[in-house]
Amino acid sequence: MATHKLLLLPGDGIGPEVMGEVKRLIDWLNSAGIAKFETDTGLVGGSAYDAHKVSISEGDMAKALAADAIIFGAVGGPKWDAVPYEVRPEAGLLRLRKDLALFANLRPAVCYPALADASSLKREAVEGLDIMIVRELTGGVYFGEPKTITDLGNGQKRAVDTQVYDTYEIERIGRVAFELARKRKNKVTSMEKRNVMKSGVLWNEVMTQVHKREYPDVTLEHQLADSGGMMLVKWPKQFDVIVTDNLFGDMLSDIAAMLTGSLGMLPSASLGEVDVKTKKRKALYEPVHGSAPDIAGKGLANPIAMISSFGMALRYSFDLGALADKIDAAIAAVLASGLRTADIKSEGTTAASTTQMGEAILKEL
Amino acid sequence: MATHKLLLLPGDGIGPEVMGEVKRLIDWLNSAGIAKFETDTGLVGGSAYDAHKVSISEGDMAKALAADAIIFGAVGGPKWDAVPYEVRPEAGLLRLRKDLALFANLRPAVCYPALADASSLKREAVEGLDIMIVRELTGGVYFGEPKTITDLGNGQKRAVDTQVYDTYEIERIGRVAFELARKRKNKVTSMEKRNVMKSGVLWNEVMTQVHKREYPDVTLEHQLADSGGMMLVKWPKQFDVIVTDNLFGDMLSDIAAMLTGSLGMLPSASLGEVDVKTKKRKALYEPVHGSAPDIAGKGLANPIAMISSFGMALRYSFDLGALADKIDAAIAAVLASGLRTADIKSEGTTAASTTQMGEAILKEL
Ligand SMILES: CC(C)[C@H](C(=O)O)[C@@H](O)C(=O)O
Ligand SMILES: CC(C)[C@H](C(=O)O)[C@@H](O)C(=O)O
Repeated sequence: MATHKLLLLPGDGIGPEVMGEVKRLIDWLNSAGIAKFETDTGLVGGSAYDAHKVSISEGDMAKALAADAIIFGAVGGPKWDAVPYEVRPEAGLLRLRKDLALFANLRPAVCYPALADASSLKREAVEGLDIMIVRELTGGVYFGEPKTITDLGNGQKRAVDTQVYDTYEIERIGRVAFELARKRKNKVTSMEKRNVMKSGVLWNEVMTQVHKREYPDVTLEHQLADSGGMMLVKWPKQFDVIVTDNLFGDMLSDIAAMLTGSLGMLPSASLGEVDVKTKKRKALYEPVHGSAPDIAGKGLANPIAMISSFGMALRYSFDLGALADKIDAAIAAVLASGLRTADIKSEGTTAASTTQMGEAILKEL
Repeated sequence: MATHKLLLLPGDGIGPEVMGEVKRLIDWLNSAGIAKFETDTGLVGGSAYDAHKVSISEGDMAKALAADAIIFGAVGGPKWDAVPYEVRPEAGLLRLRKDLALFANLRPAVCYPALADASSLKREAVEGLDIMIVRELTGGVYFGEPKTITDLGNGQKRAVDTQVYDTYEIERIGRVAFELARKRKNKVTSMEKRNVMKSGVLWNEVMTQVHKREYPDVTLEHQLADSGGMMLVKWPKQFDVIVTDNLFGDMLSDIAAMLTGSLGMLPSASLGEVDVKTKKRKALYEPVHGSAPDIAGKGLANPIAMISSFGMALRYSFDLGALADKIDAAIAAVLASGLRTADIKSEGTTAASTTQMGEAILKEL
């Protein structure tokens, strides 16, 4: 059996707690002989700052580069609001994305039937929802240069951020979206602002070409990002795969996640390119939710998004799709049994702590 | 009685139809001696392109600069999808905003009780909703330079857009937001991505300073634009005034509008600075909805957003707030009577065409 090398980066806030439940799962998989994982742990975000005055240490970056996959908790919190911009908690995550070239961010927005009523949307608008947002993650305004604040004198400053996209960056994220669509409902909706942004013009042009040249069997639609956002709120089920740039993807994937009412349940995967020699790809898996400092350390956090992110690792990094399916089924069964952490608690259901939820899922397995 | 000079720019699609109902209203106000408007009409968007191969002619730009207020319909449609970027329909609107320095875009998101069920959100989440989005409109990535597509050879192109904000641009939009909040629920939420964008860092810093220095009596909160978008979907009533940049404002105001279920009802105002000498400000008023080419020319369009935009002109340009209140009341009364255009039609209500709706509102007045 192959040994898979994992780097666990719990991060801040509820990160360590929810990561604890993934560790429990890994230990069991190892001891039951179902799979073989070798784990190492590192610091990222505020916890790295507290220890080393950086958002991730060079040592942990080296471990990240050497790992088969990174399992990431969450970063940030008011404690680090005043630290210098370069070493703010988010910088650690952004560096991992950039240095590992994790250009493809997959964010499924799925509505768990048992939780549909937690959505602010009407049940009929979200029940059965299953869309996949494919967000470009290493380009655009997140990393473009110049990115500066200049003092102009007279009490005036000028801030500049730069959105940059090259053809190849749009092509490769397009391919990820089209490939995924083929295994789903075969439809891709590309979103940009071509009526205002040159990067939107190029994005639209390249998506159209990749589609025509390589994926004519998939349906491709184009939407302006603002009206796409509206349609997402109005009737999200019209979408299958949505592909969009880094900044629009940040907004749209969060909104899609919130629509489902299952925010505390949603995982994500950030993938690099497949290496032609090793056939491997760098990857980082993290829940969509943040570090929730207000409930940290209280055993209240929902570990499902974190466990489900580990499930995505099994699927996308280790070709253990069947095992990932079993984890998904275990989560669904535990929810159906009425067990709920505080974030998804409703009348008539049974309260569970972080560990109780993790244990219940493991027991189902 | 002062004479107010209006430039009507109906634009494309349903623009001319809904503008027709504003004309009907203006004619009546003039003939009843309630106010005195002098109107002129121009072309913008696709209709200007068809006539002059530009998105707005120099003649109409001169008229726009000379008018006391511009009443704008909508632009765009598939007919002009392939026209050159510089003369695409939207360019006319963007030029008006920029050349008239209309930096403050006011977008109320109000849920009409009679229409709450048209929302995809649950009634309790939107009933009574009344928020104001204040969007910066002449800066940011919409107008920053460089804004280019460069051919790199080897089949590669590079697209660049630039987000630029200076201190004074953030200050003046901040003041608009704080002033509005004082007349409302006294709360401003500023949204940016300071964890990723330098413009977000400056935006946050300047808002904090303006607040401290000039508006300490108003409550100021800061949200990251992505989580702000989530909160908007989850529980929009937690907001009063939201102030944000041009691109985030584009997305967030559209999403807020869609939440209400009243998209076809919502107006907007785009305002310049008050001239110290004349005490006047340049202004453009337009509905939030687009040109809806699919229903154009069929008498199906809802004229309420357009009429309500004219109401905003009365309020913000001509100090005729009482008259604007009357128009709002007339709209509410007509809705309460059960009259509905196709976009807001539901069981048990009476169908109305564009003109029937316009006439009914006028009759109420
Ligand atoms: C933490 C932050 C830098 C990050 C982003 O903006 O990409 C987060 O919002 C996300 O979506 O993963
Ligand atoms: C038509 C388009 C250029 C415009 C924008 O992006 O600002 C529109 O979406 C709006 O919100 O007024």
